[in-house]
Amino acid sequence: MTDFSSTDHAMMAQALRLAERAAYTTKPNPMVGCVIAQGQEVVGEGWHQRKGGPHAEVFALQAAGERARGATAYVTLEPCAHTGSTGPCADALIAAGVARVIAAMGDPFPQVDGAGFEKLRAAGIAVHQGLMEAQARKLNRGFLSRVERGRPWLRVKLATSIDGRTAMANGDSKWISGDAAREDVHRWRARSGAILTGSGTVLADDPQLTVRFGAPTEFVPPLRVVLDPGLATVARGRIRQGDAPTLYLHAPDAKKPREFAAQHAPVPIRDGRLDLHAVLDLLAERQINEVQVEAGATLAGAFIAAGLVDELLLYVAPVLLGERARPLFEGLMIDDMAHRLKMRIVETRRIGEDVRVLLQPDGVAA
Amino acid sequence: MTDFSSTDHAMMAQALRLAERAAYTTKPNPMVGCVIAQGQEVVGEGWHQRKGGPHAEVFALQAAGERARGATAYVTLEPCAHTGSTGPCADALIAAGVARVIAAMGDPFPQVDGAGFEKLRAAGIAVHQGLMEAQARKLNRGFLSRVERGRPWLRVKLATSIDGRTAMANGDSKWISGDAAREDVHRWRARSGAILTGSGTVLADDPQLTVRFGAPTEFVPPLRVVLDPGLATVARGRIRQGDAPTLYLHAPDAKKPREFAAQHAPVPIRDGRLDLHAVLDLLAERQINEVQVEAGATLAGAFIAAGLVDELLLYVAPVLLGERARPLFEGLMIDDMAHRLKMRIVETRRIGEDVRVLLQPDGVAA
Repeated sequence: MTDFSSTDHAMMAQALRLAERAAYTTKPNPMVGCVIAQGQEVVGEGWHQRKGGPHAEVFALQAAGERARGATAYVTLEPCAHTGSTGPCADALIAAGVARVIAAMGDPFPQVDGAGFEKLRAAGIAVHQGLMEAQARKLNRGFLSRVERGRPWLRVKLATSIDGRTAMANGDSKWISGDAAREDVHRWRARSGAILTGSGTVLADDPQLTVRFGAPTEFVPPLRVVLDPGLATVARGRIRQGDAPTLYLHAPDAKKPREFAAQHAPVPIRDGRLDLHAVLDLLAERQINEVQVEAGATLAGAFIAAGLVDELLLYVAPVLLGERARPLFEGLMIDDMAHRLKMRIVETRRIGEDVRVLLQPDGVAA
Repeated sequence: MTDFSSTDHAMMAQALRLAERAAYTTKPNPMVGCVIAQGQEVVGEGWHQRKGGPHAEVFALQAAGERARGATAYVTLEPCAHTGSTGPCADALIAAGVARVIAAMGDPFPQVDGAGFEKLRAAGIAVHQGLMEAQARKLNRGFLSRVERGRPWLRVKLATSIDGRTAMANGDSKWISGDAAREDVHRWRARSGAILTGSGTVLADDPQLTVRFGAPTEFVPPLRVVLDPGLATVARGRIRQGDAPTLYLHAPDAKKPREFAAQHAPVPIRDGRLDLHAVLDLLAERQINEVQVEAGATLAGAFIAAGLVDELLLYVAPVLLGERARPLFEGLMIDDMAHRLKMRIVETRRIGEDVRVLLQPDGVAA
């Protein structure tokens, strides 16, 4: 375990902040930031802005120029060793003459996975890793989930009352949370690779599920995914509007309507519903890092019951809806306290009149 | 409206902090703090420590001595004009020669209610009121509720899961919230004049409902109140143990057991249960400022449905208990979104693994 200095920590913190600037644009690639420093002086900064574009190291080396020689490069992820859309960053760091590379973490992507570090070491560069690794992993929890587990990171977003209800018995769920919370959701959508919903929500609420920011903000529009076993909602309006693509996942025997132009794919049925594991496999194959579920209590409950939820994004509104209203998760049947589903609170924040609570089930590490 | 300076604000803020030191000891009297200052220099501080003891002004004047002459006295509540357990504070301020009195608010207590200010003005002292009045009212919301509304401030404390459940279907409610939350509850108990529960909770959980602090802390033990229409639980254990008194409220026709030594009083029946308005009237007559309800979903729901809840103290634990578990409030029947019960979040705070959320129904001002 290397002893990192406070300067090292400050530089890596800055590299992580740089990386996060691309949260809405870099998918399906990981967010990566790079700071090049001579002692305490930053001589170059960069971040990976979008797939196909230059990597963080390239921008930072460009900014540093000759001052990269003998410097330390702080990177939030292991530099690549392979030629993808761009040349290998390890080679660029070597050519620039940096003396030391400090990485927050290795890149588990099969074409890197240690080869970047190896290349640097072989060229005589001192390489250290593990500085602020937890933060770096959290930043790229979607990318890491897809590469390491073969499935996207799954976030369930729900607006709930203080008494844990998501809708009235009659299905009405409008105006549970306030304006600020509804705006905040768009930031979480923008960092997602896909927004997933069910045909029930399409029929009941007719949501558009696009990213809509108040101010001009660059983002890669997330794929809209509708779980619609019988393709019953394909004629429905708003989810087909806007710039984002829409993908219908349906049962193998679903009857496709004539002139059906939308993307669609079959998913096997399991326990009477689309197999949620298969849904996630399919989305991982499509290079989706983070999936945000915006659905009703039934689908949200099915994901929870299947143990597939990595993160719960709750907007808790200061209202009571009473005991007749619909529960947070339908189909979550627990009979005794010993079987309660334990989570941990990652963050709480006031958002307008509401409280946003981010939770992770016990055992999920990000 | 007087323009108060930043020094005035700082002094009053300090007076409020002093007042709050007696949160556990001064009941049923209001918390009052006093700062005496010459310009920006504090020359005396005091707070009302306990019923029957000297008032805040007396301590502060004592500390200031001769330096009170020509000074400004900052008081969180109008100085008294009547002789109660102690002499009138207005007279003491006059005798000490203070030039100016700034009060956060008037004292609605019938024996004061403007008479203190009048006395000071008659003696040629400049009197201003309204500085940080909202904070002062919040501090003494219990006392003010009793004096102004004739009923105690009612706080309902509940430990809930993220999905808004207070207990399993089998009644088990242990271990929903963590150690830190359970410790925190004792601070809220200590500032309460009474802790109220129902016979159902006594039978199911056998709580002691006393204040238990980890470190030596002075407090006036709150009265324990059990709503027990049929006096069915009077033989039960822990609620009769400890130093605090216990009061049983029962139906007029309840059969008292032989050798029944505990305090008890009849309350009329309304809609098949003890009349909750009458319960609060009775507690106000006993000089209870703040009532903390620690009961199950049934009694908590009855108070909510009756519109008697002023404050909701929720400890939200990061667990899911599922849709079979008991709701936050039983008997709260709402059929459409327009009739949702709106509240506002006063404060949120992480308490160990849990989140504490303090809410007030819309329309309740403290």
